[in-house]
Amino acid sequence: MIQRLDPGPRMSEASIHNGIVYLAGQIPETADATIEVQTTEVLAAIDALLAQAGSDKSRILRAQIFLADINDFAGMNRAWDAWVVAGNAPARATVEAKLANPAWKVEIVVTAVV
Amino acid sequence: MIQRLDPGPRMSEASIHNGIVYLAGQIPETADATIEVQTTEVLAAIDALLAQAGSDKSRILRAQIFLADINDFAGMNRAWDAWVVAGNAPARATVEAKLANPAWKVEIVVTAVV
Amino acid sequence: MIQRLDPGPRMSEASIHNGIVYLAGQIPETADATIEVQTTEVLAAIDALLAQAGSDKSRILRAQIFLADINDFAGMNRAWDAWVVAGNAPARATVEAKLANPAWKVEIVVTAVV
Repeated sequence: MIQRLDPGPRMSEASIHNGIVYLAGQIPETADATIEVQTTEVLAAIDALLAQAGSDKSRILRAQIFLADINDFAGMNRAWDAWVVAGNAPARATVEAKLANPAWKVEIVVTAVV
Repeated sequence: MIQRLDPGPRMSEASIHNGIVYLAGQIPETADATIEVQTTEVLAAIDALLAQAGSDKSRILRAQIFLADINDFAGMNRAWDAWVVAGNAPARATVEAKLANPAWKVEIVVTAVV
Repeated sequence: MIQRLDPGPRMSEASIHNGIVYLAGQIPETADATIEVQTTEVLAAIDALLAQAGSDKSRILRAQIFLADINDFAGMNRAWDAWVVAGNAPARATVEAKLANPAWKVEIVVTAVV
């Protein structure tokens, strides 16, 4: 009834139920990269999980964006704007919050239609 | 299958799917207003979007409240308590987080039944 | 159509709709307890609400964890790992955010299948 993607002992990367996929917070790969590069990495991780779930970025309902430094808002948006599907852009909220690893500048939580 | 309200190139103000409306983070209009006024403005923006979606404040499932300064908790609650439908108040969580514009004291993310 | 658990004038502890339960942010009971104890208290509060809703911790879709101090990440995880159902762990995101009461070290927002 609930399908888990990449289920681990602590968390899964996504839960799928009743036509909705709930992704875990996605984080960047490259510790010393710019906000643009880190955001692009996070968005690529989201693309990969959405594909596993049978969804894609045009079907995102909402994105919650956490920036370790809100001054990275413009840089994050440059990567976001190059990625998002205009006309099918999701509801979104962006706030500042320290992340679990100080090397991470951005974490994004997405909910999408499968 | 997904309906967008106020769709823009970066985000939509809301996504509607399968009887649920997912609002974007709503922010205040008046930069130098008190927390009570800014919260009232945010709640009015939520009312307007819920109305567009065919919903209303009695049908909110959950509200995530971000305050730029957690010391504004009491002031936010004064505006909230005057607005919320007692007996049909949503699940809620409130935390402190810097917002994308330093003039904003409060941002609220709402999920509701259409 | 929407069922509320513990409905109050300001918020409900949970909203149930269409087979999904949306919990309010759950907070600890003991002000001066360690992060492990406070997290265990929060998880017990989640267990109790999920039981009221006819659900349980194996059916959580997503958990949003807020830590007042991100340095408590490891301690929170010790309590979490002892509690979560391996193989059915939810999607999760953890960020730092000051909470409404400075005595609270952790707040967790859960969405689950009923």
